[in-house]
Amino acid sequence: MGGDFGPQVTVPASVQALLQFPELKVMLFGDQTLITSQLSLLNQTNHPRIKIVHCDNVIANDTRPSQALRHSQGSSMRAALEAVSEGQADACISAGNTGALMALSRYILKQLPGVDRPALVSAIPTQNETKTWLLDLGANVSCDADTLFQFAVMGAVLAEQGKAAPRVALLNIGEEEIKGNDLVKRCAEMLADAKEINYIGYLEGDQLYSGKADVIVCDGFVGNVSLKTSEGVANLFINNIRKAISDNPFKRLVAKWLFRDLFESLRQLNPDQYNGASLLGLRGIVVKSHGSADIAAFTNAIGEAVCEVKRQIPIKISDRLEQVLLERHY
Amino acid sequence: MGGDFGPQVTVPASVQALLQFPELKVMLFGDQTLITSQLSLLNQTNHPRIKIVHCDNVIANDTRPSQALRHSQGSSMRAALEAVSEGQADACISAGNTGALMALSRYILKQLPGVDRPALVSAIPTQNETKTWLLDLGANVSCDADTLFQFAVMGAVLAEQGKAAPRVALLNIGEEEIKGNDLVKRCAEMLADAKEINYIGYLEGDQLYSGKADVIVCDGFVGNVSLKTSEGVANLFINNIRKAISDNPFKRLVAKWLFRDLFESLRQLNPDQYNGASLLGLRGIVVKSHGSADIAAFTNAIGEAVCEVKRQIPIKISDRLEQVLLERHY
Repeated sequence: MGGDFGPQVTVPASVQALLQFPELKVMLFGDQTLITSQLSLLNQTNHPRIKIVHCDNVIANDTRPSQALRHSQGSSMRAALEAVSEGQADACISAGNTGALMALSRYILKQLPGVDRPALVSAIPTQNETKTWLLDLGANVSCDADTLFQFAVMGAVLAEQGKAAPRVALLNIGEEEIKGNDLVKRCAEMLADAKEINYIGYLEGDQLYSGKADVIVCDGFVGNVSLKTSEGVANLFINNIRKAISDNPFKRLVAKWLFRDLFESLRQLNPDQYNGASLLGLRGIVVKSHGSADIAAFTNAIGEAVCEVKRQIPIKISDRLEQVLLERHY
Repeated sequence: MGGDFGPQVTVPASVQALLQFPELKVMLFGDQTLITSQLSLLNQTNHPRIKIVHCDNVIANDTRPSQALRHSQGSSMRAALEAVSEGQADACISAGNTGALMALSRYILKQLPGVDRPALVSAIPTQNETKTWLLDLGANVSCDADTLFQFAVMGAVLAEQGKAAPRVALLNIGEEEIKGNDLVKRCAEMLADAKEINYIGYLEGDQLYSGKADVIVCDGFVGNVSLKTSEGVANLFINNIRKAISDNPFKRLVAKWLFRDLFESLRQLNPDQYNGASLLGLRGIVVKSHGSADIAAFTNAIGEAVCEVKRQIPIKISDRLEQVLLERHY
């Protein structure tokens, strides 16, 4: 039911994902009438791998997390998370209220042992066409060094699925050891001591898209500002490109021919595109889709959840944290 | 002597600035031999508005601020700041070590009454071709609400020179009142109460270049990451544009014709271009040029200092802070 478009996007995206993943089964939580009418538009009212779970209640986009917790009974978001908690589902995907999803996920699924706070993580594009996992993206506005350290471990586990010994960096305002605030300095010491982590040191903001690290760790305030700033810069460019070609239809045509790929990469910096941020550190898989996601973007978010289920990310995080924490304490 | 190129850049830039500003006089602090040889290349050994002040010592780019303070005696940076402090000069411009410049400025010039810490501020470009003052850019890695509040007042004074009642915003991770960390929430309350400030609320990172505010305030860690991230995104685009046209000389030609303005706006996001960040809040004017500034960029930094001298920025900051603080306390 969540996001700017609700079942208009989430239902067709689910049908799309079922085509992509033959082993996938989808449970749709929400208003049965709305869901069924979307399914019938697609001639999929009797899809053997779709199950509708009717819910009377929806958590609105502007509900505060604390309120969402109190009034969540019977809501589609809560029911979906409970299905994960009870083992009926392997993952929950939502385009709804981020704060509420975070609060309800913690309340219903609980954190993994060793995790103080779940983190919101997503892959960002890089210059050399690899991807870098950036966390936290805004779930935790103030963190201590232990929390940042746990983010690094969780990010490394996620990145390991793509490559061995992923390079982990801390986002800082200088690359020299003396630079930065107390938080990053303390976390840097912890990471340098952790044999399990391939810690490569500090990176500055201008290296975010350089591909120099596979995982970049920061607190949620910095991560969110940094991601949104990227979006702002991308918009500035799109605006300037439009201005440069708007006076002349021939210029518009030439620009399209010349820069099909460029426009694609501009779009990549839009959160709608690299859709599917994961809430890491929970006893279950939760993927947050951007609220304004279209059908393709929400299908991506479902795909991200499928990958994490196959790779058993929560168990791997839990094992790794246990190793690292044992190593630290004994 | 500072920056990547030293007198090779700073001396020709000074000569350039003297042409632009007929009322300007320049004192050049540093190695007399090096300075004179640069001047003779330009046939300006006897320029009536240039005075050379020989200094034996230079503060290196990798010197820590604390060390710079201890070993600053006789250095060009210190001598230039002392000239400001003693009233022989109206402003100091340096492309040298930022941390050292900050530490020496505080030590020699001292803060204005009511200022806890000076801030590094610069103008960033916007979509509607205005400019927005962003501070702090990295001089203060951790701030309290009082410090952020002082940054807002200082930024407003700077922006007032361009327009009346400049709009002041706090950089945050959401526009709703409930969003953000304790620091921005406390500062937001203070700003909402300050009648002297046209406080317009929170802005997110994606609005940084929107022109919605004339002053955007954040702590130095966030400001630095945000500015450097913008540079990283710009580099990502330049890289992608290059890739899109590199295989074909005709495409390169067309791209140049089409996007002269675009390339210009990409360059604007490079700190070298909007050169001349000011250290605000001192009893004197100090302008920091980017270390890799070329002659044109360093000339801009001198121009920024000339503007601030004409507009008597330190006195105006001091007056405004006194007003605002009186209003707060009585």
